[in-house]
Formats: sequence, C-alpha cells, structure tokens
Amino acid sequence: MLAATYTGRVDTTDLGEFGLIERIRGMLGAPADARLVAGIGDDAAVWRSGAACVIATTDTMVAGVHFLPGQVAWSDVGWKALASNVSDIAAMGGRPSFALVTLSLPRMSVDPIDELYAGLRECAEAHAVTIAGGDIVAAPVFSVTVALLGEAACAADGTPLLLRRDAARPGDAVGVTGTLGASAGGLRALLEGATRAALVAAHMRPRPRVDAGVAAIAAGVTCGMDISDGLAQDLGHICDESGCGADVRFRDIPIAPALAAAYPADARTMAASGGEDYELLLVAPEPRLRAADAALRADGATGVTIIGSITERRGVRMLDAAGGEVRLTSAGWDHLGRET
Amino acid sequence: MLAATYTGRVDTTDLGEFGLIERIRGMLGAPADARLVAGIGDDAAVWRSGAACVIATTDTMVAGVHFLPGQVAWSDVGWKALASNVSDIAAMGGRPSFALVTLSLPRMSVDPIDELYAGLRECAEAHAVTIAGGDIVAAPVFSVTVALLGEAACAADGTPLLLRRDAARPGDAVGVTGTLGASAGGLRALLEGATRAALVAAHMRPRPRVDAGVAAIAAGVTCGMDISDGLAQDLGHICDESGCGADVRFRDIPIAPALAAAYPADARTMAASGGEDYELLLVAPEPRLRAADAALRADGATGVTIIGSITERRGVRMLDAAGGEVRLTSAGWDHLGRET
Repeated sequence: MLAATYTGRVDTTDLGEFGLIERIRGMLGAPADARLVAGIGDDAAVWRSGAACVIATTDTMVAGVHFLPGQVAWSDVGWKALASNVSDIAAMGGRPSFALVTLSLPRMSVDPIDELYAGLRECAEAHAVTIAGGDIVAAPVFSVTVALLGEAACAADGTPLLLRRDAARPGDAVGVTGTLGASAGGLRALLEGATRAALVAAHMRPRPRVDAGVAAIAAGVTCGMDISDGLAQDLGHICDESGCGADVRFRDIPIAPALAAAYPADARTMAASGGEDYELLLVAPEPRLRAADAALRADGATGVTIIGSITERRGVRMLDAAGGEVRLTSAGWDHLGRET
Repeated sequence: MLAATYTGRVDTTDLGEFGLIERIRGMLGAPADARLVAGIGDDAAVWRSGAACVIATTDTMVAGVHFLPGQVAWSDVGWKALASNVSDIAAMGGRPSFALVTLSLPRMSVDPIDELYAGLRECAEAHAVTIAGGDIVAAPVFSVTVALLGEAACAADGTPLLLRRDAARPGDAVGVTGTLGASAGGLRALLEGATRAALVAAHMRPRPRVDAGVAAIAAGVTCGMDISDGLAQDLGHICDESGCGADVRFRDIPIAPALAAAYPADARTMAASGGEDYELLLVAPEPRLRAADAALRADGATGVTIIGSITERRGVRMLDAAGGEVRLTSAGWDHLGRET
C-alpha cells in the first residue's frame, strides 16, 4: 500500500538531499519572520529572541542507515546523535544549551535505550547541554532525533556574531583546528578489523570544538564551518557560498598523530579528505586566526593551523611543496569520505 | 539481526510511554542548567534565555502508526504535524515562533512531499510560525518530526508566565475554550464513511488556541493545558499533578454545534471524552476566567465556558443537573479517545 501511494513522476533519489532541500526552500518562500538571521541551507538556523540570539539544529540517526545495531555500542550511538548536533552549533560559533530527544521505537528491550541515554548523558555533560524534553513514538524502525538549541554571542547592537559559510574573502587565510583524519583512520581500522583504540575512539566519539568556535568569534573570525564531509569538500562548500576559491598547502595539513603512526603512507590523503573529525575550518585575515590559535593554546586546547589562503579564482587546489597540484582520487574520496 | 539485538529482559511495551519517560528522567538526573524552568514530563520544555523565556516541544508522525497514507491527504499530515506542536506551545500560554522539520524518507515520489509542505506552510502561516531549518535522512519508513520553539511572556522580574498542570487549587473554577467534540465527531464520520465536512475538517485540521493561551496569561490564569486526550482525561492529569479533584457540570460542557446536529444522542459524551480538539482547559479563580473570556470575545474569538470547580477530594466527577454522577463508559472512551 505504501509503495503504491509513494509512486510518482519525480523520485526523491532523483533529486538527492540537496535538490530536495532547494525544492522545499522554494516552496516555503521568503521567511515571514524578520528575526530569522540564518534559515534553511545553513549548518543551523539562527534567530533573534529578545536581546539573545538562538541557534537551532537537528539531526537524526536511523538504525540500519546511520548505524548497524550489533556492530556499534548503543552508548556510542547516543554520544554521536548529540555530538553531531553540538558540532553544528560549534560550526556557527555558538554554545549549545538545551536538547530535545525523540525516540522512534519498535518493540524492543529497554537495555539498549538505557545504554543510548548513558551515551547521550555523557556527551551532554561534556558540552554543558541539558536534555529538556522530547517525544517517544512507536515506529517499525528505531531512530533517534536530537534537536539542539544554543546561543550565539551578540554585538553591542544585538547583531549575532556567527561563523558563516559565505564570508570568505580573497586574501583571507584558511585554518583548521586540531588535527585531521583520526575519524577516517578509525573507520578504516574497524573495516579492516584492526585494533586501533585511539582512532576508533575518535570515530565513535567525536569531540565537537565548541571552545574553538567561541575563541574564533572572540578573535573576530566571521567565516567557518565544522569539518564533517572532509576538509577538501567542506572548504569547497565555503568557496561556493562565498564565490571564491582556495589554495591549500597539502604538506601543512595537520595529521592526527595516531593516524600518522597507523597508516603513514595514506595519512595525509586521509587527513585531507576524511570526514567526521568535527574540527573547525576557519577563514579570516591571518592575524585573527593567530589570535584564536593563541587563545586556544593558552587554555591548553589544540590550536589553529594555517594551511592556505582564499583566492579570487574558483575551486579548491591542494598544492605540494613545489607548488604543483595534488589530486585526491575519487576512489579514495568515496571510500573515506562517506560512511554507508 | 535487529530482533536479536533488541531482545532483553524488560520490554518497552511492558513499561509503556509514561513508564519509559520516568525511567529516562531518572537516568538523566536533576537538570544541570538552572535556567531550565520546565523539563521532561511537561507539555513543553521552558528555559530562560537572556531576558526572554523559550518554550520548546517536538512531535513525530510515523506513516502506518499515526496516519495511513492513501487514507489521508499529505497536506493534512503536514498541517497536523505542525498543529500538534503549536498546541503544545499554546498549552503553556506561549506564542510559537520557529520550527525545524525533519523528514525521514524512503525512496518515494516528491509529490507527497510537496503536498506535505503545502499543509505545513498553511499551518505555519495561520500561526505566524517560520520554518527555519531541519534535516532530511534516508529511512525505511516515512516520518515527519517537527521541533517547535516559542516564547513565553515574562513578569517584570523575568519569571516566565506559564500555564502549568500543577497549579490548580480547591475553589478554582474549571473552564474550556470554544466547543468540544468536533474532532471526535469527524473521526466517527470518517469511520462510518459519512460526509460531515465540518466535523471531518475539525479532525483533520485542528486549530490550536494560541490566542486563548495568551489571553489566559494576560488575565492572570496560571493553570491549564490543551485538550488532546479528551476533557475528562486531561482534567484528570491536572488534578493528579495538582493533588486535587474536580466536579464538572456535565450539561454545561460546550458541544460543537456540528456535532450536536450530526450525533445528537451521543454528542455530550463525545464532547466530554473525545480527544484532539486542541481547545484549552483552564483552571483559575472564576473572575480570571471571565476576564479571559471577555478578552477573547472582544476579539471575535470563541471564549471560555465555565463548567465546574476544583475540589479537595481527589478524582474527576461528571455531575448531572440533579447532582448525580454521570459515568463515561470505557467502551465509548476507548473508541473515541484514542486514535490508532
């Protein structure tokens, strides 16, 4: 019955996620509420609420689609369900505050739900998030949806201070926080059945960089996002939205030490293209990135590494030491950049 | 594989929704953030954000569980997915503002999604809600989750002014907004295959009473909720939370005119027990309910009908004109109060 009802001319898989988002954006038209600062299509939605600025985001994980029950711990599912949302708030430069958790439940034991909530709670405590409510519904397949609210800093005139994707300008420096590739290394270790505890932990329990987003905002950075699809692809998103390009010094990309030790031959490529590290990609005049770096290091956190610059010419180029272009193979890309 | 993973000692169906919510509340412990005003277990979560008070709620509709594709219009599914959330905000006395919409999509035609969004948009426009973002994920079964934010009025000292379930006091009057039973009448008409356009419309496109919640707050009412499970059951929730009881004058319950015309023999019972009218149940000293009534009528809206009073003795009693108790049969209850 469902299949018959759902059949039509244009299929969701023809459009793809981004095509469908654009279609929905078109159907909804211009936002009616002038308080909306960032709407559909951004990492998170932002609106003014009195003197404060609210940031809101939501992410869903479906059993069998986003994780395989029996192959991952339910506590890690809980952690990641919240962490992916925290990273969306961090990507805007905000601090997370309150979460709503919706469980769609088939008839099942409560033990996995206990474990899921243990992971949710650990992630909530790590990021000062309070789970304030949610919904529980019956469903044929398990899924967990987290809606997370947060707050942005505001200028004296009430303007929210945000990391946007469309604020890169030619001449800006490109920086990344922390080191990259550990999550991709963890995924590879899992697929190969290898024991690489540090890498697997980075993959299962990514740590969003709320501190780095806040430090970047304080240093005057206005352009950035979290690295979820991989450095090369995410920098492409920023360049597309900003109408510019970027040159990246391939050798300056900071590689996660555990990745370099485990997979030395592929480490740099994996760091450049692997997803889900949830570090931040920041674009600003170089002194601002250096100020954010200094503030983070003074707090004992990993800082910002400058890896390239924004160009007028479109497209993202990875350059070797001699200035020649490095090409990331699409095979390596598809293998590492996308979990299925 | 899923079934094996999910098997355990205690089953979600043993606990039920409310048992599971209590279990989760216990696991999460006391809220860490002192800004939280209302957390898990209320109609909606409420927290302070700067000088404002944010209200947040979320509801999910799953195909085959909450609606049957092919038997309802997708635009009505969209309307109801948002309307149920708007009613949760109205139930706290707040105004809705921004929504996040998550679609879990099997491979399907985009036509139903267009229709769904048409209904979402109509409901959003009717209640001054802006759809600000969301998420789209692949899933084996269609579902739509709406997370809705809103704002509560605040006292001069910043205390949020809310309609709570635990604020009824003996001697308070019990009032309901508008008329009741139209949604139950619409469901009955659908099940009987009867053409009752006004009743069916009330069932498919319920109209949450944001105006009534705001008027009640302005009149000093502090206790109330929306009528989603039926008057008798929802008044029971208020009495349980407040530690009191209520006497309702059965003959004073305002019956939807279309219901009285269509099902005269059963209309009053259906009005007393039918769910999903999304009118508000308000409890306060009588002058405050009269003030809210006058304000609503002055705006051309349906007002507040006083139908009874709060008692020290526990339990909700329906009384006939002679003061005898009217018993709602459980058969009528289960048939009308719960959609499946």
